[in-house]
Amino acid sequence: MATLNSAYRRLTAGYLFPEIARRTREFAAANPDASILRLGIGDTTEALVPAVVSAMQDAVTQLGDVSTYSGYGDSEGQTALREAIAALYQSRGADVKVEDVFVSDGAKSDSANLQQIFDVSNVVAVQDPAYPVYVDSNVMSGRSGTKNNQDQYEGLVYMPCTAENDFFPALPEEKVDLIYLCSPNNPTGAVASREQLQGFVDYALEHKAIILFDSAYAEFIQDPELPRSIFELPGARKCAIEINSFSKTAGFTGVRLGWCLVPTELECEDSEPGELHKMWTRRQNTFFNGASNVVQAGGIAALSDEGQAQCKELIAHYMENARIIREALESIGLECFGGENAPYVWMKTPAGIDSWSFFDKLLGECNVVGTPGSGFGPSGEGYFRLSAFGHRENILEATERIKTQLSL
Amino acid sequence: MATLNSAYRRLTAGYLFPEIARRTREFAAANPDASILRLGIGDTTEALVPAVVSAMQDAVTQLGDVSTYSGYGDSEGQTALREAIAALYQSRGADVKVEDVFVSDGAKSDSANLQQIFDVSNVVAVQDPAYPVYVDSNVMSGRSGTKNNQDQYEGLVYMPCTAENDFFPALPEEKVDLIYLCSPNNPTGAVASREQLQGFVDYALEHKAIILFDSAYAEFIQDPELPRSIFELPGARKCAIEINSFSKTAGFTGVRLGWCLVPTELECEDSEPGELHKMWTRRQNTFFNGASNVVQAGGIAALSDEGQAQCKELIAHYMENARIIREALESIGLECFGGENAPYVWMKTPAGIDSWSFFDKLLGECNVVGTPGSGFGPSGEGYFRLSAFGHRENILEATERIKTQLSL
Repeated sequence: MATLNSAYRRLTAGYLFPEIARRTREFAAANPDASILRLGIGDTTEALVPAVVSAMQDAVTQLGDVSTYSGYGDSEGQTALREAIAALYQSRGADVKVEDVFVSDGAKSDSANLQQIFDVSNVVAVQDPAYPVYVDSNVMSGRSGTKNNQDQYEGLVYMPCTAENDFFPALPEEKVDLIYLCSPNNPTGAVASREQLQGFVDYALEHKAIILFDSAYAEFIQDPELPRSIFELPGARKCAIEINSFSKTAGFTGVRLGWCLVPTELECEDSEPGELHKMWTRRQNTFFNGASNVVQAGGIAALSDEGQAQCKELIAHYMENARIIREALESIGLECFGGENAPYVWMKTPAGIDSWSFFDKLLGECNVVGTPGSGFGPSGEGYFRLSAFGHRENILEATERIKTQLSL
Repeated sequence: MATLNSAYRRLTAGYLFPEIARRTREFAAANPDASILRLGIGDTTEALVPAVVSAMQDAVTQLGDVSTYSGYGDSEGQTALREAIAALYQSRGADVKVEDVFVSDGAKSDSANLQQIFDVSNVVAVQDPAYPVYVDSNVMSGRSGTKNNQDQYEGLVYMPCTAENDFFPALPEEKVDLIYLCSPNNPTGAVASREQLQGFVDYALEHKAIILFDSAYAEFIQDPELPRSIFELPGARKCAIEINSFSKTAGFTGVRLGWCLVPTELECEDSEPGELHKMWTRRQNTFFNGASNVVQAGGIAALSDEGQAQCKELIAHYMENARIIREALESIGLECFGGENAPYVWMKTPAGIDSWSFFDKLLGECNVVGTPGSGFGPSGEGYFRLSAFGHRENILEATERIKTQLSL
């Protein structure tokens, strides 16, 4: 008699973004004339850059010709792509080798899957608020109890990130084993300084903890003093895994391509030298057959000089959107964070109303969709995320509506 | 102090195909003049069909134009693709609904991931020999002990498939919970009859077990009497999940696209109605962000009337290869199975030599790479798999070498 993985029953509600989509669909059905503008999910809207389009066209053409057709590739990714990714890091002084690079179908998959090579008894620490996948994947894998009345899963360690600590957490007081950090942060838009990040690296080295560092938004950092990779910091190769993606920087949200870096020197309490790197290799060899060859060709092109120049324009477009959103919100007296080194503006809800009430209010009064801060964790309650991904005219229209139609 | 998932240490050797690649590389390095022909891994070699190439070109073009660009899609897959997949089944009398269909990046991922929604205590039964992913993913997830001296992981139930039972297993005598079946079978090339499959469906219904049915080679079935889907059989919607792929039928081994069918009626001992379907939805929403939109466009085209006609020609090409291989082997007195409704020929090694010795012998004497049967499980010992995927001239050359150079 088969039985189910009862850890799934501990999950509350659905995954955040399908839930937003559902509420938005219901509103649209009840208000068929409403012109809804979506600044909720961080979904790219601008076209793929020409270098990527051209490379993917060529890859498809080659697959249609028997003399250039190719089948299975390495599950770790094509060597040329792994080399290009490693070179990007090396050019910025980050200590990354080609064999650290594991190409994947996106940062979401890696964020969710990496916990599998660690024991179920490991104590997981997350920034609060955080991208929901870190928490949900660990709940589903049995590393938590049920949710308590503070809206926290028992057994997980929540590290509050609020205006009071500039949205970067203090070091955990209890012993933790796996630490998820995201910088630039989704949803708060905060970026860890070198000193802040070094504090966590030192903690991890001292306690033999592992940091899972999500840098999917690193290319949006404008301030050259801020670290774009945890491997810019000494000691990180022994204690950190980094997760990154082409989704936001090259518009690959639907195209699907990402990578993680698992250093050969990574170690935990009971690992042999190199063992964790070998385990992740084995995990990918068994559970994954590599990212699409067509898509990998696009990734290589995105990392070429031409592709990088074109992607920088994309990023500049979204960062100007972020500036417009933040300026509009502040002009009507709303308190804002982020949006300067990240494509997300994080605002305090007005008059202390809760996040989902503000979601309904913004949708009802302005027909604008955002993301309730509480969807990212209990410390997100009373905050709200607006995404800078969007066409300029929609960002201008949405901010105009917020300025003129939102009752405060 | 982080600790690793020690279940990985129970795994013996590397994943089969990287191991074959490693041995082949070593041979090539030691014999630089050898012209090596690869009939090992089941990797497609012929070009993508024109309908698919054209659709993927169009998809890339659309992503390069802001007016037709699209980002995130549903993690379950595009509705048009889910509908086309369901329609394919329905046209053959299989009881499949659109909401059963979950599009993925390939059958390997689904084969490995589906076990996650079941409890770790479930007893897993596999055909022996079998595609290594079924066993390895369950070992890594903690459903086994270490390997015993019969080359079996303790705690897993091996269902021998040998010449004596026509390569289809008897019903398990012990209680099992999750049953992996593959038909047409990789590696043996055997296809379950309707009666054989119904026996397992009836067993699963009686014992509330779940069948994970891998039909990745269904399109290679030539005999119209043989079932191509488990959902052609009454009762299967309550007890079976089906896994399928575009890899072998449309040449998508490197392009990456597959699907699984999780019926809304699927149930196990402790599930609420519809719960397993909801759990898999939640799993995919959390761990996966959908297959590439470019690739899904190719999948839709492969299922169009034009695409289906073109893919049938591809399949006919590979099945003619299978006929050539089987005929050549039999002409020199080797005992062969499969190759008639599946793209794999399964042969008994000559003079009782073991599978890896025959691998070395075939590579050394003929410079032909095959796959040792023992790599698929202990009952595969003394057998050897040759893949029919390949260019015709290579298949002819390889079989000619086998006929003239192999010492028996």
